[in-house]
Amino acid sequence: MKDRGLLIVLSGPSGVGKGTVRKAIFDNYSNDFDYSISMTTRKKREGEKEGVDYFFRTKEEFEKLIEEGGLLEYAEYVGNYYGTPLDYVNKTLDSGRDVFLEIEVQGALKVRGKMPEAIFIFLSPPNLDELESRIVNRGTDSDEMIQKRMKKAVEELKLIQYYDYVVQNDTVVNAARKIRNIIESEHLKVVRNLKDFTEIIEEME
Amino acid sequence: MKDRGLLIVLSGPSGVGKGTVRKAIFDNYSNDFDYSISMTTRKKREGEKEGVDYFFRTKEEFEKLIEEGGLLEYAEYVGNYYGTPLDYVNKTLDSGRDVFLEIEVQGALKVRGKMPEAIFIFLSPPNLDELESRIVNRGTDSDEMIQKRMKKAVEELKLIQYYDYVVQNDTVVNAARKIRNIIESEHLKVVRNLKDFTEIIEEME
Repeated sequence: MKDRGLLIVLSGPSGVGKGTVRKAIFDNYSNDFDYSISMTTRKKREGEKEGVDYFFRTKEEFEKLIEEGGLLEYAEYVGNYYGTPLDYVNKTLDSGRDVFLEIEVQGALKVRGKMPEAIFIFLSPPNLDELESRIVNRGTDSDEMIQKRMKKAVEELKLIQYYDYVVQNDTVVNAARKIRNIIESEHLKVVRNLKDFTEIIEEME
Repeated sequence: MKDRGLLIVLSGPSGVGKGTVRKAIFDNYSNDFDYSISMTTRKKREGEKEGVDYFFRTKEEFEKLIEEGGLLEYAEYVGNYYGTPLDYVNKTLDSGRDVFLEIEVQGALKVRGKMPEAIFIFLSPPNLDELESRIVNRGTDSDEMIQKRMKKAVEELKLIQYYDYVVQNDTVVNAARKIRNIIESEHLKVVRNLKDFTEIIEEME
């Protein structure tokens, strides 16, 4: 029997470039993990396939699933639901494959509560030292606007404490490589390999 | 102030190729960590330099250091002492640099007791499935010899439980790359970066 796969959650502040980094990971590496397919109530677009791009469901079906606790996390966006189906994630993990989830920070916190054994990676803005001056020096903004954006940035950065790893998105290539390394290293942890060794040892004894 | 460096301990069964892998790591990467310099009572050889190849000490000096608890671990080998000076390791770690230690399993266990926060990597033989048949099928050995070697292999493999990571030495290049990735990933852990983020957040608030 194969060991259960790892759930990898990539998240971080809005606008930090999560989608671009995730795409680089999936385009440039032959990965032995699956990108989690989301469920949505929005209409299927030309060329999109059920179970490939999304799991397409009606609003009623989606809300039933929410009630049954069948979603790892979900959110509403311009009148449509988007979420991660728990059943799909569990089946993939049970088959021994890793699942890669790229979601907003609020969703990531929910996943942390439900699947604490997952690996949480926080993608942080580059040049942290310059973050403050970049927010202040945009020029066109009112003081009130600056205060608001600063407050949001602080709130998002504070969430880092709920994560296992932090990767600065200095370049997409660097960030993707580091995330790939984290996943590989996690698989090398002794706790995830003890079973194999115990079997060999018992055979030899 | 820089964060304290990491102590990385590479160990594994005798004959597994620890030295070769360590050499590959230091030859092929521009590392931001130092290889721990051992202390010895053996005579300095032609071309060897104090504080570069070894710290050369008399038997009396070495034994005084043992008594004072000044060695992280030590062993006696053909009449000479070899050991890791605690003071040198601590000073390097305090300066913010990582220290890389490649030692025998018995020494590694001692270090685990004294520095539990270190990262312990077990280099395991390749083709674990074939380990048993390789020991049995050497042809020339007596049954007694086979039993003895099997027992030793089992004892060494059992030590894996005291380590954080396990890397199979399938090829030197692969093993070196994986160990390099483990060290990089450990530095990306949130617990090792919280201070930087806390400072930025306090500044922005």
